Amino acid sequence: MPDFHALLWPRHVALIGASPDLQSLRGRIMHTMAGHPFQGEIYPVTRSHAEVMGRKAYASIQDLPQAPQLAVLIIPAQYIPQELERCGRAGVKAAVVLSSGFAEASGGDGSLLQADIRRIAERYDMAVIGPNAEGFANIAAALCPTFSPALEPSERPLAPTRPERGQVTVLAQSGGIGFSFFDHGRAKDLAFRYIVTTGNEACLETMDIAEYVLDEGKTEALIVLLEDVKNPDTLRRVAEKALRAGVPIITAKIGRSEAGVRAAASHTAALAGSYQAYRAVFDRYGLIEGYDIDEMIDLASAMIAWRGRLPAGRRVAICTASGGGGGWMADACAAAGLEVPILDADTRARIDRHLPAYGTSQNPVDATAQAVHRIGYAGLARLVMDAPGIDGLIVVITARSPKNLAKQQAELGRLAAETKKPILLWSYTLPAPQSTKILSDAGYPLSTDIRNCARAFAAMADYRALRAAFLKPIEVGHAPTPASAGPARARLAEADRVLCEWEARPVLAAYGIATLPAAWLVDTAAAAAEAAVGIGGPVALKIQSPDILHKTEAGVSCSISRARSRLAPPTPRSSPPPRKTRRWRASAGYWCRRWRRPGWR
Amino acid sequence: MPDFHALLWPRHVALIGASPDLQSLRGRIMHTMAGHPFQGEIYPVTRSHAEVMGRKAYASIQDLPQAPQLAVLIIPAQYIPQELERCGRAGVKAAVVLSSGFAEASGGDGSLLQADIRRIAERYDMAVIGPNAEGFANIAAALCPTFSPALEPSERPLAPTRPERGQVTVLAQSGGIGFSFFDHGRAKDLAFRYIVTTGNEACLETMDIAEYVLDEGKTEALIVLLEDVKNPDTLRRVAEKALRAGVPIITAKIGRSEAGVRAAASHTAALAGSYQAYRAVFDRYGLIEGYDIDEMIDLASAMIAWRGRLPAGRRVAICTASGGGGGWMADACAAAGLEVPILDADTRARIDRHLPAYGTSQNPVDATAQAVHRIGYAGLARLVMDAPGIDGLIVVITARSPKNLAKQQAELGRLAAETKKPILLWSYTLPAPQSTKILSDAGYPLSTDIRNCARAFAAMADYRALRAAFLKPIEVGHAPTPASAGPARARLAEADRVLCEWEARPVLAAYGIATLPAAWLVDTAAAAAEAAVGIGGPVALKIQSPDILHKTEAGVSCSISRARSRLAPPTPRSSPPPRKTRRWRASAGYWCRRWRRPGWR
Repeated sequence: MPDFHALLWPRHVALIGASPDLQSLRGRIMHTMAGHPFQGEIYPVTRSHAEVMGRKAYASIQDLPQAPQLAVLIIPAQYIPQELERCGRAGVKAAVVLSSGFAEASGGDGSLLQADIRRIAERYDMAVIGPNAEGFANIAAALCPTFSPALEPSERPLAPTRPERGQVTVLAQSGGIGFSFFDHGRAKDLAFRYIVTTGNEACLETMDIAEYVLDEGKTEALIVLLEDVKNPDTLRRVAEKALRAGVPIITAKIGRSEAGVRAAASHTAALAGSYQAYRAVFDRYGLIEGYDIDEMIDLASAMIAWRGRLPAGRRVAICTASGGGGGWMADACAAAGLEVPILDADTRARIDRHLPAYGTSQNPVDATAQAVHRIGYAGLARLVMDAPGIDGLIVVITARSPKNLAKQQAELGRLAAETKKPILLWSYTLPAPQSTKILSDAGYPLSTDIRNCARAFAAMADYRALRAAFLKPIEVGHAPTPASAGPARARLAEADRVLCEWEARPVLAAYGIATLPAAWLVDTAAAAAEAAVGIGGPVALKIQSPDILHKTEAGVSCSISRARSRLAPPTPRSSPPPRKTRRWRASAGYWCRRWRRPGWR
Repeated sequence: MPDFHALLWPRHVALIGASPDLQSLRGRIMHTMAGHPFQGEIYPVTRSHAEVMGRKAYASIQDLPQAPQLAVLIIPAQYIPQELERCGRAGVKAAVVLSSGFAEASGGDGSLLQADIRRIAERYDMAVIGPNAEGFANIAAALCPTFSPALEPSERPLAPTRPERGQVTVLAQSGGIGFSFFDHGRAKDLAFRYIVTTGNEACLETMDIAEYVLDEGKTEALIVLLEDVKNPDTLRRVAEKALRAGVPIITAKIGRSEAGVRAAASHTAALAGSYQAYRAVFDRYGLIEGYDIDEMIDLASAMIAWRGRLPAGRRVAICTASGGGGGWMADACAAAGLEVPILDADTRARIDRHLPAYGTSQNPVDATAQAVHRIGYAGLARLVMDAPGIDGLIVVITARSPKNLAKQQAELGRLAAETKKPILLWSYTLPAPQSTKILSDAGYPLSTDIRNCARAFAAMADYRALRAAFLKPIEVGHAPTPASAGPARARLAEADRVLCEWEARPVLAAYGIATLPAAWLVDTAAAAAEAAVGIGGPVALKIQSPDILHKTEAGVSCSISRARSRLAPPTPRSSPPPRKTRRWRASAGYWCRRWRRPGWR
């Protein structure tokens, strides 16, 4: 069992291939690691220098005064196996291989070298990330074994100063994109725990790290950029674990298009697999798909800020001082699948007392700049938040000038602490950095993209509903009835690994899952024609065979167009059943769907 | 004819209701107007002060030493008509009414006051904006009669310094959102010409201003936030004028949802109308819809930067140093309807000479950080841009640090000047302001949202294609043939204002426009049943009457479900034809579509 703790929380670290040359990646990683207040030792390992950036250098990992838990390797690909072997022998428990030129490289023996890495890691039970990775950052430990410019040492602290802040972990094969989440999120005052980039994933993949992170229990949202998943079982297990823990996984899958699949293959040698298969897992376990970096940051920020208080439904109230902004947000909410219902009479009467004649309490609540100037955003939100038909609020604000927000910070903070319904903010003006900080300190995520804000509200509501349904024990009404349970179980016990749709139908029915009623199992052309006449309207044929799960595999095509025509019985053909088929039957009444085989290994 | 030049380019301006109190809107607008280097006089008009911010104040518009062309009014609603009347008598040619409390206010006599404004404007032929507007900004004239915080005087120039820059004009009823485009666009180094907010539009509406702006010929893209259009003919005329001029209109329509319609009504007393009707105009004249402020800024920036060189098709090459970024962009492009084809062999061979083994030239072209460090983004783009199967490029960059970009600026500038195909940039890291400026000076718009970047490319291609089709004279092959032209023209000449679908079909056919073939005109139930049997499959009835253009108007509903069933002839009914029907016939074979009546006035 690889030691993830040694990987992410090593006491001491060796950098194999360290250099004092700041123009090279080797120099930049040394500079980055040394520039943050990591408490352990950082040992440069190189034969070319006696000293690197003020630290004594060692010619070999075996020469170090003490064995480090983690080795970071940035040397040419062909030397990686022997060096990793040395690390194993020296008792190193974890390694990050940053070098490129492995399975992602065309020609050469990169794939063989990558297989070597895997063998050596297994032999020494080392936790190995890479090759072709960009390293990671453990923000709490100030450990940054990466050459990402996003982690370059600066005056700016790596994390917001308040320690009670919910933390997000980023996992990605791609280093550039992985660390860009940190770059964007930091500008929004989001707190990060780890950013881990895994490159080609010869050994550990993102989902392995995700499992450690979930077990650790310090991360409240995961952002995962997926190129491929080597082990779908791990994905499913981790996704379920995350859902049970209420830690949302916000994910983007690369390879939704043909060109994306090509790119992933050449980038990290990923077999991107069928996007539909991924989607099925995402839908089942509530993974939230994102389509842009900022969108995913907004999703994570919202989920963390309102953890435990996610909206109970999709009904949102919009509060605004800008009538145009409120109207636009109403449209954005509708586009995101949210409802913006007219508020109840009591709530409206309460609001109306504060509005001038040219405001409105209907929803969007356009309080006008005049009223908001008087009662503040928090005051306005308080008037609306207890409305019975509302699951949460979106407040349209202008965060351009921090001065006005600073005055409201205390009241906004009290509101965030007290409200039982989530409140999202959209600023139509570009917020000053200080404005973002004021609102973040008060407990609010801030969107600058109207689509992202509406989407975040919808995602929060969906996640809560899906999680509740997932955690709820199966209701009595949906459990097999006494009469049907026995036969259903017996059928499952007897079944081979594959149950044809036709055979699965009674089992599904026993659990109350509806299937199409108008379908018959037939085994001759004449019987099919007769069944089709009985069904009426267009029909389609679907093969029922455990050996032909997808018709494309057998070169069989259902003649839908023929079945669609006037239902004349087809001329019987003398051709034998297709090759490799044990049973050959067809059930009429289903539409054949285009179905791609999951490309997972 | 209202004098738009007097409105937007006045020599002198009176501010009626001026105040020295910076806490009030009256004081803020005076401060804003006085804080920019407008060359004309600004006359404060107020009875409460002898002097406002160092300027002599006047008790009445009639007391000014010279008549201003423009009066800006910010006094209580009930005093607006009499003051506007005074302006008219004093020879003022244009006015901006900022006060609220007119048609948008519930109760009271706001609507009557608004009608007064309209009457007075007509009497004196004044160009009047508002009421309930937030004013405007003429950036070139440094004239900012608005209290928008986005125009507050600061060190920062209002426009980028290079004069040759293409300019965008923003038009919106909403002041908050209108000026937020300026706020967002300025951060992206976009050059603005005017930002005009029109509020309730008692007299002039956004499309009137748009027409002046188009005729002026100094604006290369329009951003228009629409709440409603009072005069659809103006919208159509202006949209066509813009399309002919090649000035794209990037628009967002408020009121796409029920709640949005409500919001627009209460905000600017807008009757938002049927979104479908707007969509039809947008589609016909190539208006580009946006759904977020930054998205619309990115669309405008791209259209301006590549004006005259819009992509000839939807085939894009992606260049990147980040494999993950390239893959993600490929997916984003596919989602936006773009193609990301594999490059031709010659181009690939040319690229491959510069790539390490772990890069790829297929498309996305992942050059790796190593190659990009050597040849630069421009060098990479040059290797790809001449590929025959490609209509333009998207280059994935990191604009976090301006240092690296500054070195490449000259070469990037040369490339932008020379390329015949457009090049868009997406930075996955947050760009430093200096980075944005470097790239903008070199001629490139920069997206930070991956969706917006892909969308902008697709919008450029669509706009070019639509404009080309619109401007192309009808081809000979599509013109009426000699045999059919005569009857078609005769039919049109004889026709009433409305031509029923049935009557229009042969005219359309004469112009080569296909219509559904399986349709018959029938006038009895028996004939309908007979026709239905002849057609086979599901049928629907559609009323052919110039008096009943939409079936909902007559309370007539087509019994689709019945027509769908086994086509049994319906029992003849003795009921007379519906009220108000001159002719009553039905043609079978069409599906009835849900059709909402345009709510335009």
